[in-house]
Amino acid sequence: MSRNDWFLNRCPSIDEAAAQQAQQRQQQLTKPPGSLGRLEQVAVALSSMQSSLAPTVDNVEIAIFAGDHGVANEGVSAFPQAVTAEMVKNFVRGGAAISVIAKQIDAGLTVVNAGAINPEDFGAPVIDQPIAQGTQNIALRSAMTRSQCMAALALGKSIIDEYTDNIDLVIGGEMGIGNTTSATALAAAFGISAAANLVGPGSGLDSQGVANKLKIIEKALARLQETQQPRSPQPRQPIDLPINLPINLPINLLGELGGFEIVALVGFYIGAAQRGMTILVDGFISTVAAFAACQVNSGVRQWMLFSHDSAEPGHRLVLQALSAQPLLSLGMRLGEGSGAAVAVNLLRCACALQNDMATFAEAGVSDGADE
Amino acid sequence: MSRNDWFLNRCPSIDEAAAQQAQQRQQQLTKPPGSLGRLEQVAVALSSMQSSLAPTVDNVEIAIFAGDHGVANEGVSAFPQAVTAEMVKNFVRGGAAISVIAKQIDAGLTVVNAGAINPEDFGAPVIDQPIAQGTQNIALRSAMTRSQCMAALALGKSIIDEYTDNIDLVIGGEMGIGNTTSATALAAAFGISAAANLVGPGSGLDSQGVANKLKIIEKALARLQETQQPRSPQPRQPIDLPINLPINLPINLLGELGGFEIVALVGFYIGAAQRGMTILVDGFISTVAAFAACQVNSGVRQWMLFSHDSAEPGHRLVLQALSAQPLLSLGMRLGEGSGAAVAVNLLRCACALQNDMATFAEAGVSDGADE
Repeated sequence: MSRNDWFLNRCPSIDEAAAQQAQQRQQQLTKPPGSLGRLEQVAVALSSMQSSLAPTVDNVEIAIFAGDHGVANEGVSAFPQAVTAEMVKNFVRGGAAISVIAKQIDAGLTVVNAGAINPEDFGAPVIDQPIAQGTQNIALRSAMTRSQCMAALALGKSIIDEYTDNIDLVIGGEMGIGNTTSATALAAAFGISAAANLVGPGSGLDSQGVANKLKIIEKALARLQETQQPRSPQPRQPIDLPINLPINLPINLLGELGGFEIVALVGFYIGAAQRGMTILVDGFISTVAAFAACQVNSGVRQWMLFSHDSAEPGHRLVLQALSAQPLLSLGMRLGEGSGAAVAVNLLRCACALQNDMATFAEAGVSDGADE
Repeated sequence: MSRNDWFLNRCPSIDEAAAQQAQQRQQQLTKPPGSLGRLEQVAVALSSMQSSLAPTVDNVEIAIFAGDHGVANEGVSAFPQAVTAEMVKNFVRGGAAISVIAKQIDAGLTVVNAGAINPEDFGAPVIDQPIAQGTQNIALRSAMTRSQCMAALALGKSIIDEYTDNIDLVIGGEMGIGNTTSATALAAAFGISAAANLVGPGSGLDSQGVANKLKIIEKALARLQETQQPRSPQPRQPIDLPINLPINLPINLLGELGGFEIVALVGFYIGAAQRGMTILVDGFISTVAAFAACQVNSGVRQWMLFSHDSAEPGHRLVLQALSAQPLLSLGMRLGEGSGAAVAVNLLRCACALQNDMATFAEAGVSDGADE
C-alpha cells in the first residue's frame, strides 16, 4: 500500500471479550441491572476500546480545525467570513466556548488553521498549516484539488501522530463560516437524505436564508451530477488538477464539496481509529466528517462515540445513518467540539461507576435473584 | 403562623433582573445567540437564583433519605425489603452509585434513615432518625399518622438547616423498596394522570409484576376515595390518629400514600427553597416529591432545576405537570439522587461558559449584526 493510501490502512479491532466482561460486572454492581442506562453502555464500550475492565477518560485531547469556504460569498451564513480567522485567535486566547470547556474538563486544546482566509499568519500556538486561503465556491466548481484534499487529510492525521499513547479520548472540532452548507451538501451527496431534509439555519439564518442556502446546495449537487460522466479513456489523474475519480468515491466527494477543516477532521478521525484511540464526535459538521471517515475506512466506526444531538435539523439524520445514539440533547449548535467536550464528564462518571461501585457480594446487598 | 406550619412560610423570590442581565450577556458572548442551547438557559436560571452574573456550582450537598414501605409485602418490587437497609450501609461505605458520583463531583453526601426496617441502629455517619420501622401498607390503611407525616417533613428540613450558607446546590435522593408504588399512587392522587399511565417497572418488574403493582395502587386509591367523606361536624384532628383532613390537601395525601423518605424529601425541598437554595431534582420518585412540595408551597417551584428524564414511564408526566424540562435523558432509573448528581458537571460547564467566555467586543470578533 502506497504512502498516499494511508487512510485505507486497517484499524485495530475493539476487544469484544472485554465488553462482555464489563457487561457481566455491570450486572453484579449494587443497582438494578440496566438502571444506569446509557452510562452502563458507555462504560462497556470504553472497556472494549481500552481492553480494560477499568476504563478511564483522564487524558483528553481536543483539536479544532478552521477553514474558510468560497461558498460563503453566496450569503449562506448569518456571520461574515472574517469570523473564521477571528475565532481562531479567540480559541487560543481562551475566550471561545471550547477554550472554556477544555479548561473546565482539563483537556488539551490544539488549534489548527487548515485554510482560513487571514490577512497575516496566526503563528504559534496555532498550528498554522493552511492548505489554501479558503476553498473554491462549491456552487460553481470543485472545492479543492485532489492534492489539496490529500494534504487536508494528512494534516488531520498529523495532529493524531503528535499525541502520546496515554491519550484516552480525542475530540475533533471545526470552525468555518459557511461550513454547514458544505456539510449539508456532503451529507446529501453521500445519500443520507435529500438536501431539503438536511438543510438548516446553521449559525442563525432566517427561513429566507435557509431557502437560499438550499438553492446553493442544490446547485452544487447539480454541478456534481453533470460532471458524473463516464470516464474518458485517456489517463486523467494529474496531481494538481480538480479531482476526477468517479464521484461515488468518498474521497472524491470530500474534494468536490468539503472544506479543508472537514477533510482534516476526516483524516483526524481515521488516524485516531488507526491508533485505536476513542473518538468522541461533536455536532452536525463533525458527524458528517465522521460519516465520511467511515465511508473511506469502515474500521473507523467502532472507535466512535457520539456526544450530542444538535439543533441543526440534519444532525439526527446523519446520526441515524451511522446507527449512532448520542448521549446529550441540549439544543446546542455551536460546533468547535463544544458538545463533545461537555459530554466528557458523563464518560468520566460512567467509568467511575463501573470501576468503583461495590458488587452485591462485596456490599452484602441482596440482589433480586435471591427472592 | 404556628411552628407546625413552617412549610407554608414564604420562599424568597428569584432575581428576575439578574436573569435579564445574564440573558443580555449570553447575547454578547462569542457564539451565535442561543447556540449553547440548554446550557445558556441553565446559566441564566442560576444567575436568577444566585442573584449574580457569575453563578457557581462549586459547593454541592446531596442528602439521601431511606424508608421502608408496608406495601412491599404486596410483591410490588423486584428486590426484597432488606435491600433498603443494606443500601443505607452501602451508601456510607462508598459502594453505591451515588457514593461514587458524589466523590466524582466533589459533593457532600448525607445519608438519612427516615424509616427503614433495620434490625439494629445504623449509627454514625448515618443520620439515624427513623420515624417508624416502615410505613403501613397503603393498600389497606393510611401510610402514616399525621404526626409521623409532620415529623418526616421536619426531618427533611432539619438536613437543610445544617447546611452552611455557601452551598450552591442541593440534591435530594431516596432509597426505599416499594417506593415507586407509593410515588405512583401519589402522582395519581394528585391528579397528574391515571395510575395506569403512571405505573412502571420500578427496579425491574416484568409485565405481570407491573399489572399486580397497578392493582395494588388502584386499591390504595379506592381506599382513599372511600375515606373522602364529607367532614363530620365534630372536631377531628387528634394528633396521633390517621390523617383526617380533606384528602385534597397535599399534606394529607402525603400521609395517606407517602413513604417516610418521600415526605422527608418534600420537607427537604421546601426548606431549601425557603433558604433560597437551588434544588436539582432527580428521578421519578424525587420529582413526585418535588410536585408535592410545590403543591404544599407554590414558592418552591422557582428554586428547582430538573436533571433528567428517567426510564420510569410516569416520570415524563410528572415533569410535564411541573412544566419542567430536564437536562439529561440517559435512560437512568436508579434513584439515590444519581441522575441529578451526574448532571452537576453540566451546570458547572454552563456557569463557566457564561462567566469566562469573551464577548464579541473583548475578542474582536464580528457579530452577525455587523453585516
